[in-house]
Amino acid sequence: MSNIAAAIITIGDELLIGQTIDTNSAWIAQRLNAMGIDVLRRVAVGDDRSAIVNAIDHELADASLLIITGGLGPTSDDITKPLLNEYFGGKMVVDAQVLEHLKVLFSRRNRPFLERNMKQAEVPDCCKVLFNSMGTAPGMWFDKDDKVIISLPGVPFEMVSIMEKEALPRLQQRFISDALLHRTIITAGEGESFIAEKIADLEAALPAHIRLAYLPGAGMVKLRLTGRGPDTVSLTRELEAQQNKFAERLEKIVLALEDLTLEQILCRWFTENNQTLGLAESCTGGNIAHHITQVPGSSVYFKGSMVCYQNEIKETVLGVRRETLGEFGAISEQVATEMAEGALKTLASDFAFSVTGLLSPLDEATVPVGRVWMTVAGKGRLTTREFNFPYDRERNKDMATSMGMLMIWKFVHSLT
Amino acid sequence: MSNIAAAIITIGDELLIGQTIDTNSAWIAQRLNAMGIDVLRRVAVGDDRSAIVNAIDHELADASLLIITGGLGPTSDDITKPLLNEYFGGKMVVDAQVLEHLKVLFSRRNRPFLERNMKQAEVPDCCKVLFNSMGTAPGMWFDKDDKVIISLPGVPFEMVSIMEKEALPRLQQRFISDALLHRTIITAGEGESFIAEKIADLEAALPAHIRLAYLPGAGMVKLRLTGRGPDTVSLTRELEAQQNKFAERLEKIVLALEDLTLEQILCRWFTENNQTLGLAESCTGGNIAHHITQVPGSSVYFKGSMVCYQNEIKETVLGVRRETLGEFGAISEQVATEMAEGALKTLASDFAFSVTGLLSPLDEATVPVGRVWMTVAGKGRLTTREFNFPYDRERNKDMATSMGMLMIWKFVHSLT
Repeated sequence: MSNIAAAIITIGDELLIGQTIDTNSAWIAQRLNAMGIDVLRRVAVGDDRSAIVNAIDHELADASLLIITGGLGPTSDDITKPLLNEYFGGKMVVDAQVLEHLKVLFSRRNRPFLERNMKQAEVPDCCKVLFNSMGTAPGMWFDKDDKVIISLPGVPFEMVSIMEKEALPRLQQRFISDALLHRTIITAGEGESFIAEKIADLEAALPAHIRLAYLPGAGMVKLRLTGRGPDTVSLTRELEAQQNKFAERLEKIVLALEDLTLEQILCRWFTENNQTLGLAESCTGGNIAHHITQVPGSSVYFKGSMVCYQNEIKETVLGVRRETLGEFGAISEQVATEMAEGALKTLASDFAFSVTGLLSPLDEATVPVGRVWMTVAGKGRLTTREFNFPYDRERNKDMATSMGMLMIWKFVHSLT
Repeated sequence: MSNIAAAIITIGDELLIGQTIDTNSAWIAQRLNAMGIDVLRRVAVGDDRSAIVNAIDHELADASLLIITGGLGPTSDDITKPLLNEYFGGKMVVDAQVLEHLKVLFSRRNRPFLERNMKQAEVPDCCKVLFNSMGTAPGMWFDKDDKVIISLPGVPFEMVSIMEKEALPRLQQRFISDALLHRTIITAGEGESFIAEKIADLEAALPAHIRLAYLPGAGMVKLRLTGRGPDTVSLTRELEAQQNKFAERLEKIVLALEDLTLEQILCRWFTENNQTLGLAESCTGGNIAHHITQVPGSSVYFKGSMVCYQNEIKETVLGVRRETLGEFGAISEQVATEMAEGALKTLASDFAFSVTGLLSPLDEATVPVGRVWMTVAGKGRLTTREFNFPYDRERNKDMATSMGMLMIWKFVHSLT
């Protein structure tokens, strides 16, 4: 599987003063990697003309594909567009489609289209415009000798949208002749090294054109098999045979054989089984409900979440008893249990999940930071579990969110 | 604004396949920047000998300070230490302090200290050891001509610990430079180009040692003034005078003169004014509560959120009347109003905010996708507003979340 070599340049002073954490490069690297394009280097430079030109020169010496993000907004610190125009010896021209799109955007936002906004519709005549349906700055595709240079806005959702709709399909056509297929196995409950040990022989026996990647997340490890070959039909058959082998070996910890998120897996199970879910969240502050409602169609099964951040609300909304709070404290097995039972009643759902915990230090706290209790209840059954997360506030909240959804899935899954 | 120039190299294959988001560089950049050291470039390369050597050569051509993280662990893919030893022409020697520390660590973890672990105590004899109290791999400081090269482990808390205890104090001594200060103006309600137009003359009149950056977010634009000079006192005065000029010009849209998030601004206002807040969320699915509870201390003012994803729950939990839902539909001014009034009662809070909307297509929908109604209520007053967001589900949810928090702020702020 020898590969096309790519480099990624991200532009912006905010990256060099550490104000912004660069998530764009990781996303781009993942997507290129999934297509079979290797990333050699990722470079971040400031909004500085010569730094950008040097970086382009340097990266083009080694890479056949260069992806540049950032530096394309309408203000004066955005210098990439004229710079690329000059670099590739073009002339700035107004693009009719971009201009039309800008005028529509401005009028929809009730803003006047000013003279200085005209510049936003200009592109170098030597590039192919990659249309940006989500924002104002168009992407640009330049061909230079046998290399490709793509420039994209730095706003993450605009970058993602242009990559998915415009750039990736063209890159597929341009660089990839063989079919490239993926199959996924999602596991939960064991770590990367446990899994690696367990499947070492299967991994070693993979043919050269199929490779395995481990993609660990909170409480879950995703295994991705990537195969490349001239014939889609036989490659599909081969990949699925491998997928089955790995899935059989890991049987007990397999969650899904598709590339789904935990919230998608929940949405599918609840809608297929015609069941409903309600939540009572304390320390996760609505984050589990937020994740669950990211999936279109979740309103069919998800009744809602009672985010009860103060004890008083746990009493009035969920009916947690004052004595229970007094005797055991808000972060306890007993309160988690009463919260879940309260949610079952208040939300009249088939299943209910509750979570209560301490995520950052508090003067009057009687439990250690990171202690979290969760309960799942429904169909006359109930499970409660204690967790102790070792990270900072944000990461502990994320962990509690993932582990909570996983706990719901294990509970309902064990019933079917 | 001439300054010491630094570069950061992060090493690890996981960075190039997008498996890990690089947070180390942002942290390092922030700390260097605060000291007045400019970061010219950040580069990520894989665990590959020649890629690392090339990156070092290339960065040392421009930078006086090079900070390298990663590639120092005990496994076979960690190649940085022998490579740096060779690069700087040293010889590997056992460091007595590191060896002692390793033996203590191993015995504390109940693991035998094996012969192969001796290698972990070896360092190039041409470096100054930067002691790692949090882990096994020591940091290394190399002097080459008038340049400094620092190598640190990639584990974030080990890197942070060595930087703070060992590297930063030495860097402060070694590279004395000007003070570097920032001032922020947070605005809401107008776009980047509107603001740029409005302050064009002020921006053009900035002295050479003060520069302005635009940092746009959902519904908000942050303006950052960065100044550099030998005297902290006069620079502070000058920066604050500039900050006031810009703030006066943009008066109507200024939210804060500090670098705060919207949720931090809310937390401050509510705690300072000793008021409480409750939410009733439908289409944002708990995301506003999630944002609000990201701020430590939010439990003082934030009572909770009734995430009522189904109409039935809007009735039972918030007391929205069935006739209102029937006559006007769930996404209407009337339902938003009754939701907020219900939240005021259910949560017994001083202020309540409600949001109901359609974020993605639905068969029986009677309103367009992106239509959202929001209400803020409290102190006998009530405001309701309609929004029409033009993006996809996720982005519309993010926009509704930001605009909702902004609407709360404007409402409560207008009372003081």
